[in-house]
Amino acid sequence: MKHFGNRVEGLKIAYIGGGSRGWAWGLMSDLASCSDISGSVYLYDIDFNAAKDNEVIGNRYKKAPGVQSRWHYKAVKSMSAALTGADFVIISILPGTFDEMESDVHHPEKYGIYQPVGDTTGPGGIIRSLRTIPMFEEFARNIEKYCPKAWVINYTNPMTLCIRTLYRIFPGIKAFGCCHEVFGTQKVLAGVVKDKLGLEQEVDRSEIKVNVLAINHFTWLTSAKYRNVDIYPLYADMCEACKDTGYIGHQAPNWMERSMTSQGFNQERVKIDLFRRYGIIAAAGDRHLAEFCEGSWYLDSPQQVLDWDFRLTPVSWRKADLQKRLKRSKALLSGETPVRVNQTGEEGSHQIRAILGLCDLVTNVNMPNRGQIPNLPLDAVVETNAVFRHNEVTPVMAGNIPTSIYPLVTRIVGEQEIVNEAAAKRDLNLAFRAFCNDQLVRLPLDQARKLFDEMIENTKSYLSEYFA
Amino acid sequence: MKHFGNRVEGLKIAYIGGGSRGWAWGLMSDLASCSDISGSVYLYDIDFNAAKDNEVIGNRYKKAPGVQSRWHYKAVKSMSAALTGADFVIISILPGTFDEMESDVHHPEKYGIYQPVGDTTGPGGIIRSLRTIPMFEEFARNIEKYCPKAWVINYTNPMTLCIRTLYRIFPGIKAFGCCHEVFGTQKVLAGVVKDKLGLEQEVDRSEIKVNVLAINHFTWLTSAKYRNVDIYPLYADMCEACKDTGYIGHQAPNWMERSMTSQGFNQERVKIDLFRRYGIIAAAGDRHLAEFCEGSWYLDSPQQVLDWDFRLTPVSWRKADLQKRLKRSKALLSGETPVRVNQTGEEGSHQIRAILGLCDLVTNVNMPNRGQIPNLPLDAVVETNAVFRHNEVTPVMAGNIPTSIYPLVTRIVGEQEIVNEAAAKRDLNLAFRAFCNDQLVRLPLDQARKLFDEMIENTKSYLSEYFA
Amino acid sequence: MKHFGNRVEGLKIAYIGGGSRGWAWGLMSDLASCSDISGSVYLYDIDFNAAKDNEVIGNRYKKAPGVQSRWHYKAVKSMSAALTGADFVIISILPGTFDEMESDVHHPEKYGIYQPVGDTTGPGGIIRSLRTIPMFEEFARNIEKYCPKAWVINYTNPMTLCIRTLYRIFPGIKAFGCCHEVFGTQKVLAGVVKDKLGLEQEVDRSEIKVNVLAINHFTWLTSAKYRNVDIYPLYADMCEACKDTGYIGHQAPNWMERSMTSQGFNQERVKIDLFRRYGIIAAAGDRHLAEFCEGSWYLDSPQQVLDWDFRLTPVSWRKADLQKRLKRSKALLSGETPVRVNQTGEEGSHQIRAILGLCDLVTNVNMPNRGQIPNLPLDAVVETNAVFRHNEVTPVMAGNIPTSIYPLVTRIVGEQEIVNEAAAKRDLNLAFRAFCNDQLVRLPLDQARKLFDEMIENTKSYLSEYFA
Amino acid sequence: MKHFGNRVEGLKIAYIGGGSRGWAWGLMSDLASCSDISGSVYLYDIDFNAAKDNEVIGNRYKKAPGVQSRWHYKAVKSMSAALTGADFVIISILPGTFDEMESDVHHPEKYGIYQPVGDTTGPGGIIRSLRTIPMFEEFARNIEKYCPKAWVINYTNPMTLCIRTLYRIFPGIKAFGCCHEVFGTQKVLAGVVKDKLGLEQEVDRSEIKVNVLAINHFTWLTSAKYRNVDIYPLYADMCEACKDTGYIGHQAPNWMERSMTSQGFNQERVKIDLFRRYGIIAAAGDRHLAEFCEGSWYLDSPQQVLDWDFRLTPVSWRKADLQKRLKRSKALLSGETPVRVNQTGEEGSHQIRAILGLCDLVTNVNMPNRGQIPNLPLDAVVETNAVFRHNEVTPVMAGNIPTSIYPLVTRIVGEQEIVNEAAAKRDLNLAFRAFCNDQLVRLPLDQARKLFDEMIENTKSYLSEYFA
Repeated sequence: MKHFGNRVEGLKIAYIGGGSRGWAWGLMSDLASCSDISGSVYLYDIDFNAAKDNEVIGNRYKKAPGVQSRWHYKAVKSMSAALTGADFVIISILPGTFDEMESDVHHPEKYGIYQPVGDTTGPGGIIRSLRTIPMFEEFARNIEKYCPKAWVINYTNPMTLCIRTLYRIFPGIKAFGCCHEVFGTQKVLAGVVKDKLGLEQEVDRSEIKVNVLAINHFTWLTSAKYRNVDIYPLYADMCEACKDTGYIGHQAPNWMERSMTSQGFNQERVKIDLFRRYGIIAAAGDRHLAEFCEGSWYLDSPQQVLDWDFRLTPVSWRKADLQKRLKRSKALLSGETPVRVNQTGEEGSHQIRAILGLCDLVTNVNMPNRGQIPNLPLDAVVETNAVFRHNEVTPVMAGNIPTSIYPLVTRIVGEQEIVNEAAAKRDLNLAFRAFCNDQLVRLPLDQARKLFDEMIENTKSYLSEYFA
Repeated sequence: MKHFGNRVEGLKIAYIGGGSRGWAWGLMSDLASCSDISGSVYLYDIDFNAAKDNEVIGNRYKKAPGVQSRWHYKAVKSMSAALTGADFVIISILPGTFDEMESDVHHPEKYGIYQPVGDTTGPGGIIRSLRTIPMFEEFARNIEKYCPKAWVINYTNPMTLCIRTLYRIFPGIKAFGCCHEVFGTQKVLAGVVKDKLGLEQEVDRSEIKVNVLAINHFTWLTSAKYRNVDIYPLYADMCEACKDTGYIGHQAPNWMERSMTSQGFNQERVKIDLFRRYGIIAAAGDRHLAEFCEGSWYLDSPQQVLDWDFRLTPVSWRKADLQKRLKRSKALLSGETPVRVNQTGEEGSHQIRAILGLCDLVTNVNMPNRGQIPNLPLDAVVETNAVFRHNEVTPVMAGNIPTSIYPLVTRIVGEQEIVNEAAAKRDLNLAFRAFCNDQLVRLPLDQARKLFDEMIENTKSYLSEYFA
Repeated sequence: MKHFGNRVEGLKIAYIGGGSRGWAWGLMSDLASCSDISGSVYLYDIDFNAAKDNEVIGNRYKKAPGVQSRWHYKAVKSMSAALTGADFVIISILPGTFDEMESDVHHPEKYGIYQPVGDTTGPGGIIRSLRTIPMFEEFARNIEKYCPKAWVINYTNPMTLCIRTLYRIFPGIKAFGCCHEVFGTQKVLAGVVKDKLGLEQEVDRSEIKVNVLAINHFTWLTSAKYRNVDIYPLYADMCEACKDTGYIGHQAPNWMERSMTSQGFNQERVKIDLFRRYGIIAAAGDRHLAEFCEGSWYLDSPQQVLDWDFRLTPVSWRKADLQKRLKRSKALLSGETPVRVNQTGEEGSHQIRAILGLCDLVTNVNMPNRGQIPNLPLDAVVETNAVFRHNEVTPVMAGNIPTSIYPLVTRIVGEQEIVNEAAAKRDLNLAFRAFCNDQLVRLPLDQARKLFDEMIENTKSYLSEYFA
Repeated sequence: MKHFGNRVEGLKIAYIGGGSRGWAWGLMSDLASCSDISGSVYLYDIDFNAAKDNEVIGNRYKKAPGVQSRWHYKAVKSMSAALTGADFVIISILPGTFDEMESDVHHPEKYGIYQPVGDTTGPGGIIRSLRTIPMFEEFARNIEKYCPKAWVINYTNPMTLCIRTLYRIFPGIKAFGCCHEVFGTQKVLAGVVKDKLGLEQEVDRSEIKVNVLAINHFTWLTSAKYRNVDIYPLYADMCEACKDTGYIGHQAPNWMERSMTSQGFNQERVKIDLFRRYGIIAAAGDRHLAEFCEGSWYLDSPQQVLDWDFRLTPVSWRKADLQKRLKRSKALLSGETPVRVNQTGEEGSHQIRAILGLCDLVTNVNMPNRGQIPNLPLDAVVETNAVFRHNEVTPVMAGNIPTSIYPLVTRIVGEQEIVNEAAAKRDLNLAFRAFCNDQLVRLPLDQARKLFDEMIENTKSYLSEYFA
């Protein structure tokens, strides 16, 4: 790449999982909107044809109305071809297929365990981690080999353990993980601000300044401000007022939640209940938050989920959604549906610009704990704000996990640390020690083992390294 | 006090809770057995008559057969009279009465929550802590005022929070807490060693060398050795072999467990299940251990308790037992039952001797974490081995809580830290944030609050400071 | 104060040391330049007449050409009147008089010890700390009493121990310390960038992005960038090229250095030597840096100082300069010299605006170490970057002190920690333990004690609390 | 090896440096004194003939009068032969020859730098470290390969960096370092106790209980007790009384000091001066202590050394002493001088017994900091007490380095950490960054570099890996 004053040209971005139908198109659109950076995106995917389709779609953006910057897209058949010389690496993959995810999410239902997402914690999150970690080991080794100075941005779940693995294998890596869940909560807070202050116009989420801490999908805000207004008392009022009805006053959340939510769902009732329990604002979608809590609170049965006004996302929905997106891919590919340049609200392209020294940025990222949360273990991956500047992403001192939520958070961090170690050692027995203590797995030991073994068996084609 | 070569005379011991029927008599017997120390024991109790009775009983030991050392006992009406000039302070009280304990233990049963002990964690432990901490604040203030250089040995539960409070109020205090639960587990291990090695004679628990770590009543052993024999594999074998039947091969445990245990109970089945879950030896009685775990595992119902072959200790049993001990007190007082000098197996008197420089000793104590367990919060009270030497009790580096049990342990440490802070601030709402997250309180928020409020109401005569 | 969208009116600023001739006028000018904030500045000074003069001068700014914002100035006779209701507190005092400073700086010369500044470390810095700390204890107590929620900005030296004291006395204080020394080094780097890249126009220091760490006046930069350019290799080249001649290519530094520097001085030769020794960029003026190093390196004799092309600042110069500033005060007071609105380059007013939520800012501050420099002691005051946002100043994770300078830095941090403890306990013997180990005090023990006692004696009218 | 109740037979000890004339014979004698352990000692040395001689000498002990245990000695030609199957590994080597040591100690004298020992810190210690660390890397790799479960006891200097290297290369190693310097100080204290208490008989050093902390050869005692007597005030009295004369009342120290000390030397005057400076008891010989302090205090010139009543040990003395020991070796070999069984006072054999579970022991060792000294960096090697039990050596929580000596100690720890990193990376430039900041190297940068380069050149035959 080359800097020309306030412009950078000739950037090389490697996209692992570049055949994606969804994220990839958002990135294409965001990059096309950035007038001060340009270059090439190398698309690598185990499904080469999918990458090839995205190459065609990506290159269509060059001629889209409103394009600010023309990027060249190229599908490649090897990871090394994508990585060699890359300035940035984006990782956004599905570890395994939706069939494996079906086992992760639904097999535990036979034992009375219900999971709205199943990709981070709970029995599904643990098994998904076991198959994902070896993949990220390979990514880390390749990055060390082919582009050790590249910045790596991960969007894959389980976020925490993906980043943990990258740093475990290649400690010098410059990697961080991004997730939009906090943005969603900022939008909820923007809604509360507008309602409580009686403002006439919408408040943009970027005006909601928050101190973020803890771990991905179980993130908390210890301060929240809109200009000189402390949002905490406003939020407390809302929580008491809406404890039975839930809260819907805010802006539409991200596309996935939007599409998953029909009337009556997603009313922030878990978030409200957690605030009433602990006095701290939880900053993720209810479907995620519920999974990190004692199983009897929100996930005891499908009916209890309905009672709390959120919903379980069945993998069948994901499979159907994929069909829609495949259809959309075809339409984009043929040109039947024209590509459009509009910003997604994701921050990836701004982060890239800030790392290139083109702007300053403070936002939340997932990175190893070097002390930014002093009362969590060092090296565990945590989510906090960070300052982005030229070639630097520096976490701010987020402070201690507040006393009242410390037991909840450390329990999960501890679980993830076991899974990390178990995967590193390819030791399923150690992994089971986390599994049998999981907040959703409230089973006698032998039943827990039976469930674990079945879930391993169901997904074993992606776990061969554990049986070597 | 005065040192004469290898003897110390003129020791002054202050005994807070000196009217006790049980512990006090054991101490009298142990002191009478120590040939190299002598002095006076000042008995202070809010029930002065009980202390007075113990004065008489204690002084009877001077003429008991086999007495090695004659101690003078004196009941006093003020704490200051007991503490002034004391070299050692022993604290062993019942915080409140068995009526309060009845609420702690049994009121939650109305909500389906069963507690075998109810004095450390769970709803009962939390409420007991709230009423105990202000008492220990007073003790600490008085010790700072009247005998700041005295060594303070606490036997009262909740052990962790009693010690935490002493140090919070008077950071320069020289205090530690003692508990025999680890000894009981050493006896289990001694039995396992004897069985597995086919030894003919009993193995003494003092020959079982262990690395102790975590917190009182939820203590774990990361190593266990008998001479050059690593007990871990023997114990693992036993756990697999006895997973359905339990294990009874060992020596009789302490008096309270002995009296509470009829045939068929106390078969270490919780301990065995925990080892099978986590691969680490849990070192406390099953009744205690069960309370620290997810409520559905061992305490879901009275029947489940029976299925696991331990038992709930009803407060009615304690009340009946107290009647027996009162009867025994009368008999000792009248001389009908003669006092007897025999060693209890408690280590208090040896600890005193070691602190006086008369012997060296390595044993387990409860003290604030200064780093002896690096992955637990500093200042939280932890249980580890310590070296006792003249005027020093120095914890050894016990090491990190092993990964597999880290989530269990930090959850409890976190709960205790909240309760500590809540009691320090007299803030019942903060206390409730621990309560609603407790592993045994698996209730919806409003029900949890209702239970909490009722338990507070039931015991409010001991909680007046929270309503000031 | 009151927020009106993007404006804040009715701010109250308390200025302790408000009779200052120099700093105060700079602040007046900076405040007058800020169009989005207005309010009152309460001037408190032990010399009330000096404050009164500044009240008149300050109020003249309301009518100065180019004024953006009209501030009201008021001299008050009590600290409480200044502090009550204050939103911000600025502390900028001279602890004692230049007579005490004369002893600090020049008395050690009798023992062959030369100090260019003598206000932070070395024998002068230690004695100055001893008289300053009790003053800051009083400030902290008053702030806690009269305006506990105010933000406190300190400019007084010894910076580290002033901030340390504020937090020791009132742990909930919101205080930080500001110093322009890093700015000076950014200017040096801007000069290097311009020279080495052959740029035609000046580079502004705000474009030099640095990672700041260590302690005030002995601050280091572990990264330095200009856009996408890594300045480290450029600086290394300069250091080798200029090791014998020094480097003068950069912009004029701050007013004090400018006035103290005649041709031939201030050529960054200490900075260059330190880079060649340790490979890290030292970020303070040479006069400061030299004082933190082994005495034989740069300060063995007045001639050695000249050889290194910097200079000792005699207190006589400060006294003469004060006379000039008094003359200027008179001229401003009478209106003979008109007040002028121009920005000083100090960041105080921007920091205030950022804390009010009017802008975001990342800059370097002195605050207690909460882990932002993991390998320095917690609670010691360190200098790092921080993110300023509404009502928050959050240090970034600056990282470890690099191995090569760790011995130099911890030695000084250790000295400051002793002085902190000694002053807190009013224990001159403990203070002497720091003094006799100071890098500039290379004396036999008894001579060191003699010097210490004489310096105490010379300044004892400000040390009465140590003899109470 | 095999345990028979309270005996262990068939132990295999590998001795690296087994051709030693001195240490080896002491070990032979100590082992012959232990009635409860027996086995073989495999002697490996780069000088095979020296090992062979010791094989003969060692085997003579089997028939020595008073032998308690017969050990078999065998010289081997490869390290692997010595290590394979070893239960214990003893490392006691001379890194390089006395010619290299001559450069280490005496070459700096050309620059006015005087070193009494020159094997730990100062220019000599740094250069010695650079050539020793690669050797210890090899030892660590071999131990990992051939006897990963063996306990490793090191006596080689630089102690700290030898142990640091073993753990760096093989983190799972069970290694510690032993040094008798603390014992010498215990003897001084025993003398003080006897004198001050007016005791009639000698006090044994084992009765002096101390809390040891900091780093090898610069070790400090934060408490010291004899039974119930606090030695601190006695020592303070002695220091004031003897500040001009020194103190000689104590027992003879170890053999090397004894032989090096003629009348008038070794009067503990450095130790006394340090106590008067910092209020903490320094626990090593004066020759060592002086090297860790500012060069102008005790080592400014040979005359200053004499004034302080200790002495520089010239390498010529070591060479002459070696000749004496070679002569003695011949005499032992031929049988002209009979071998004798008597205890040396070293603790190696007791440590072995304790690790075998045959006794308990608390003594001081050098091990990586896991938190036993919370305010020193983790992983740096520190000296503290440790509890020895079966297969465990567990440091006790020694506590923080006291404030008054923190700057001295961290400076040295920092130096060692640089040298560790420099050696690990084979980076002489980084090593020089420590060298130019050393307390004894008070030279301008270019002179310091010249000295460094010359010392490297003088010893380069042992530094080939740095030039690869």
